[in-house]
Amino acid sequence: MCELLGMSANVPTDIRFSFAGLAKRGGETGPHADGWGITFYEGGRGCRSFHDPDPSAQSELAKLLKRYAIKSRIVVAHVRKANRGRVSLENTHPFSRELWGRRWTFAHNGQLKGIKKRPLGRFEPVGSTDSEYAFCWIMSRLEERWPKAPRPAQLDAALAELCLDLNGLGVFNMLLSDSRVLYAHCGKRLCYLTRCAPFGTATLIDEDWRVDFAQETKETDVVTMIATRALTRDETWTELARGDTVVFKDGAVRLLRPGRRAVSVALPCGCD
Amino acid sequence: MCELLGMSANVPTDIRFSFAGLAKRGGETGPHADGWGITFYEGGRGCRSFHDPDPSAQSELAKLLKRYAIKSRIVVAHVRKANRGRVSLENTHPFSRELWGRRWTFAHNGQLKGIKKRPLGRFEPVGSTDSEYAFCWIMSRLEERWPKAPRPAQLDAALAELCLDLNGLGVFNMLLSDSRVLYAHCGKRLCYLTRCAPFGTATLIDEDWRVDFAQETKETDVVTMIATRALTRDETWTELARGDTVVFKDGAVRLLRPGRRAVSVALPCGCD
Repeated sequence: MCELLGMSANVPTDIRFSFAGLAKRGGETGPHADGWGITFYEGGRGCRSFHDPDPSAQSELAKLLKRYAIKSRIVVAHVRKANRGRVSLENTHPFSRELWGRRWTFAHNGQLKGIKKRPLGRFEPVGSTDSEYAFCWIMSRLEERWPKAPRPAQLDAALAELCLDLNGLGVFNMLLSDSRVLYAHCGKRLCYLTRCAPFGTATLIDEDWRVDFAQETKETDVVTMIATRALTRDETWTELARGDTVVFKDGAVRLLRPGRRAVSVALPCGCD
Repeated sequence: MCELLGMSANVPTDIRFSFAGLAKRGGETGPHADGWGITFYEGGRGCRSFHDPDPSAQSELAKLLKRYAIKSRIVVAHVRKANRGRVSLENTHPFSRELWGRRWTFAHNGQLKGIKKRPLGRFEPVGSTDSEYAFCWIMSRLEERWPKAPRPAQLDAALAELCLDLNGLGVFNMLLSDSRVLYAHCGKRLCYLTRCAPFGTATLIDEDWRVDFAQETKETDVVTMIATRALTRDETWTELARGDTVVFKDGAVRLLRPGRRAVSVALPCGCD
């Protein structure tokens, strides 16, 4: 059914540890062997992606990424277990579009009954998945409403409404970034973890790797990881509730509530 | 001033040999050390890209691509020597957009005086280069004219006109693909080479590598390489004339002439 992995940090941060755990789930410790992809936002506006229709657990490209440190403030990653849409590059998440001069990135797990009956605007899917179609539907609605970029609070509110709408079609767990922030929606299953001072150690579930984050970080660093299932065995991951839409900015967490003011979620270090 | 590399083939083909030559020009045998990128179209509609703001001659990612065979029918690649626009990921070619459910890829060398005064439509640049701006201008004009995909001959004619227009602003050497075909425009310098039966040997100029293509190919294969400067020392590259817009499809070559019928260029094997 696919797994998602995201990161939001207030400093450029390397995701090799978490990615190594996720990659194992693509054909070794998990069945998500129908392709994988990852997008790193580096330096602000720019991003780069790596996609592979082959299983992440065996992929040469995934092996490179486990060695090659790319420091980012936002990451969106996905390992796929195909449902609708054949295994192919064009059906491999994350998907990407440009709107308002920003690069948007989207990954999803779940099925959305009837999504392809909904009209699209100027964004059309290249592949055949419900996921990419849903992304194009979201982007089309945003662009129709605002030819130029709206204020952040307006965008937050609109996305919360659109997610609520799509949630009604089935299972809509997703990650979406516009390069400024990272949005997440929990349809059925999604959790997160914020690492901040005092940093501790963490051990992956899927691979024999333990990190002492106190050796890797500065006191002011805030790094939030978002995942379908917890990636470490010795940290406390927070499960999002079904229907939650959350926005992560520089590692901080705000819960969006359609029609009401967003709520900041206290960070463990109290530094929000 | 940047260098371009493209490929159009009638069978999925591996570009490691030519890419190895180009990559050396990014900081070793050439000065194009301000980032590089490559897009591979695999299996029809899908494509994947690799971008790095670091010099290709030293890049770990480029080293992987010299080992890791990705077979494609269309490739667009670029090594950059920055002119306008700082060295950053968002300023690294090739650039990409979706239109009509196809993934479009663009790379350019040259400068275009006044390009940023031209109005854009629904495509906006993420970075600050003249090149990406020109790409967004082209895509905006196409989309305004045709909300749904036009016939290939209409698209060919429109692109020939748009290239002629941009050529008037300075130097417009470019490669552009919509996943079906590969367009090229020679503003100042661009050449191509078609390999087909009987295949021979080729030796790179920039690296100590010689290939006997007869060992690597079938008799019906047709592979056309397009580059700013010839990549091999012992093959005959054809220089395009200034102002030529060419479309490559399955390795075959057609010269587009604004307002007149396109002309097929005979392949050396006579198999066009």
